[in-house]
Amino acid sequence: MIAALSRYQELIAEHISAHRLPEGPENLYDPIRYFLTLGGKRMRPVLALMGAELFGGELENAVQAGLAVELFHNFTLIHDDIMDEAPLRRGKETVHKKWNDNIGILSGDALLIEAYKCLANNEPQTLAKLLPLFNQTATEVCEGQQMDMDFETRSVVATEDYIQMIAYKTAVLLGCSLKMGAITAKAQDEDADDLYQFGLNLGIAFQIQDDILDVYADQNKFGKQVGGDIIANKKTFLLLQALKDANSDQQKRFDDLLSTTDVALKVKGVMELYDELDIYQKATSKKNYYHDMAMENLKHIRVDATKKAPLEGLAHFLLEREH
Amino acid sequence: MIAALSRYQELIAEHISAHRLPEGPENLYDPIRYFLTLGGKRMRPVLALMGAELFGGELENAVQAGLAVELFHNFTLIHDDIMDEAPLRRGKETVHKKWNDNIGILSGDALLIEAYKCLANNEPQTLAKLLPLFNQTATEVCEGQQMDMDFETRSVVATEDYIQMIAYKTAVLLGCSLKMGAITAKAQDEDADDLYQFGLNLGIAFQIQDDILDVYADQNKFGKQVGGDIIANKKTFLLLQALKDANSDQQKRFDDLLSTTDVALKVKGVMELYDELDIYQKATSKKNYYHDMAMENLKHIRVDATKKAPLEGLAHFLLEREH
Repeated sequence: MIAALSRYQELIAEHISAHRLPEGPENLYDPIRYFLTLGGKRMRPVLALMGAELFGGELENAVQAGLAVELFHNFTLIHDDIMDEAPLRRGKETVHKKWNDNIGILSGDALLIEAYKCLANNEPQTLAKLLPLFNQTATEVCEGQQMDMDFETRSVVATEDYIQMIAYKTAVLLGCSLKMGAITAKAQDEDADDLYQFGLNLGIAFQIQDDILDVYADQNKFGKQVGGDIIANKKTFLLLQALKDANSDQQKRFDDLLSTTDVALKVKGVMELYDELDIYQKATSKKNYYHDMAMENLKHIRVDATKKAPLEGLAHFLLEREH
Repeated sequence: MIAALSRYQELIAEHISAHRLPEGPENLYDPIRYFLTLGGKRMRPVLALMGAELFGGELENAVQAGLAVELFHNFTLIHDDIMDEAPLRRGKETVHKKWNDNIGILSGDALLIEAYKCLANNEPQTLAKLLPLFNQTATEVCEGQQMDMDFETRSVVATEDYIQMIAYKTAVLLGCSLKMGAITAKAQDEDADDLYQFGLNLGIAFQIQDDILDVYADQNKFGKQVGGDIIANKKTFLLLQALKDANSDQQKRFDDLLSTTDVALKVKGVMELYDELDIYQKATSKKNYYHDMAMENLKHIRVDATKKAPLEGLAHFLLEREH
């Protein structure tokens, strides 16, 4: 699977390197150049290419749409890092830390506009279909980020609202990437919509899995500290589901644990409550629900089954089931 | 002239009121709604309508392009206010003051995307011409803002660089507005380009006049404090030209004045130096140079002279010469 992905990744890397930003002012474009070299898996433009290939489109025709989503994604990271006061991104200094907040704001703005420049490199009829989708998705990503910030200060968040937040903040852009690829390959609207739903549902499943792994991953294989979300009182799907299902005694134990400064005690105590409330199973079942929907969406698409193998492989790669 | 403008302004006001933003999240869209009610002259969308009318286009066809530039302009104001730490805009609290910086950043982002949504409401062939122009202009506006911030910390700024900064930061958007209107009216490229240049040159002349009025306006007719730029050590065209032309004795007097805290002495002293260096005449001559170029651009456009009267009126209204 990784080998298959790398073919797409190389094409994208080539085009990102070849993409010429204006020369100056340096304080506007150096931060963008710096941030783009921090890398990342380039998953979104890869999806755009895969979306095009599914419908027999030329990869080259999907590159500009792919670059647009990748630049857009990086714009959101630069601005989110300011809002979250994050010092590091992919192990390196964030833009607002290396320069300052103002430069982070303005170079982020310029990068968003750069994304639209890539979109504009499509021919008129394709552009007319890509732009409304891209706009709607971009709006939802902002809405997701706002919901995420709003949730931080709310005492109660319904799991349904949480799912909507992760859908908007991250999953819609995966759906959008795939569908933009499909549009460049002139897929039928209905098939392009199914592919969008596939990406959306896969993205939601992936985010729920992210929440699960933070608690239940094998520390030897996990890149971050297991239990990090628990320590940070992060409102994950697991915590929200647990708070909803807890009886009054368990609620009281949660309250005490969430305010303790003893990190080891906190992780142990919250995990005990998760076990009592069957949270691992509930979260896994929710993840599988979205995963199954994604596979159903993929099945609906009216192209030869062999063409779908790379996307099935991708879904498997992203969401290896442990049961 | 004001009466003629108000016809366009009313049409724009109608469409801005009718423009529906998504319902929520409130913390994302309330700041945008608030900011749009602060008003302003809506000069940019008026220019889009005038650009369309010049070539016999339907005003209605230019409305979405006009809204796009107006929303874009408001996006830049929200982000600039954060960067400048400005507490007030049009006498009311700025978004980041009324809410906070994060909400200012994110609602600004959402407003920029909203501008692109308006653009997307044009038919494919028109959109394909509008989008690259809008993108290029938006990029230049960011570059102008960055240059402006860079200049603040530089000891020497050439008047040519200053002119480029004001061109990018404000004048290009006037040219863009006019040309987008022309594009919706299916004007010939050459004429649309001349109209762009007219707006660009008019915008530069207007900014230089702004610098002149800050020093030489009649306080009874001037909305701001006369001499405000001098007090704030703002690098205006006048100051940069004066610093360039000053001999070493005058340079020394400038250095002393720019660091004094005696405001009355500062304004009086700088104005004396401006008189010695003939700065009023030099700035007025530069303003007239761009004004003349603008009128030359307008003359070139291949439409009946009577059609050009509203734009001539606008130029006269914006740049009443005092000599």
